[in-house]
Amino acid sequence: MNVDFINPFLSATIGVLKTMAFTEVQAGKPFLKKDKISHGDVSGIVGITGPPNGSMSLTFSKACIVQIVSNMLGETFQEVNDDIRDAVGELSNMISGTARNDLGKKGFSFKTSIPTVVSGPAHEIRHMCKAPTIAIPFKTTAGSFVVEISFENGSG
Amino acid sequence: MNVDFINPFLSATIGVLKTMAFTEVQAGKPFLKKDKISHGDVSGIVGITGPPNGSMSLTFSKACIVQIVSNMLGETFQEVNDDIRDAVGELSNMISGTARNDLGKKGFSFKTSIPTVVSGPAHEIRHMCKAPTIAIPFKTTAGSFVVEISFENGSG
Repeated sequence: MNVDFINPFLSATIGVLKTMAFTEVQAGKPFLKKDKISHGDVSGIVGITGPPNGSMSLTFSKACIVQIVSNMLGETFQEVNDDIRDAVGELSNMISGTARNDLGKKGFSFKTSIPTVVSGPAHEIRHMCKAPTIAIPFKTTAGSFVVEISFENGSG
Repeated sequence: MNVDFINPFLSATIGVLKTMAFTEVQAGKPFLKKDKISHGDVSGIVGITGPPNGSMSLTFSKACIVQIVSNMLGETFQEVNDDIRDAVGELSNMISGTARNDLGKKGFSFKTSIPTVVSGPAHEIRHMCKAPTIAIPFKTTAGSFVVEISFENGSG
């Protein structure tokens, strides 16, 4: 995968969580995943079409997303409910859209699908792409989450 | 949503499962979902970009997908493992690609992302689209599954 694709997603995640959810996040070092698997309790998934085609996911533990959405909506949540799922859809949309715009300025033209939100304790997410998936780990005071991006080989 | 979008996904599902997995499926009547929620054990998700943008999911119970992939690979599976997940990615890719080609012949130009596969007992899938999601229920001898498609309002 073109390494120029990583930073726009990293910056968009930091910026959107700060602006929308008043949450400071710390990005860890992006790494290549061979097994392409993540586990979490709530995930937002966005399809990306180019070429190259790809996919993006945000995968949160329950503790982490409950805290983020509590900050975002100014209301205290304890459980994963519809407000949390809607917020994950909104965050996925804004992060993928911000990254897409940033990539557009660099000459890469992508479109992004409407998000799909998955919830269920310890589900597994797998990007079905032959090329390695890039995982960007993030830390918050309430726990960690991961942003994954995957693109086909080819023009990327 | 444009009702012309439904049949290509319905026919593609029947055709791909017959050709690839030697499985005859019976389509039920498509219906509009207001709650946008499905539950299943293994799902394949594909992002769609147009306009209009959208998303597609296939959501299977464990019993149903284990039987389909056993037919497909000529090997008996009991549990959801990597072979099953890979097969769901492949089926999602082929069904969305076949529907996309069919829609292209009708003058609708869409692109489809790489699939993402979710597994985990009784996870919930939600398409984050303001317009209603269309659900197409299917029956097999090993149980039922659902194909959902969701498109933004607008040119669709």
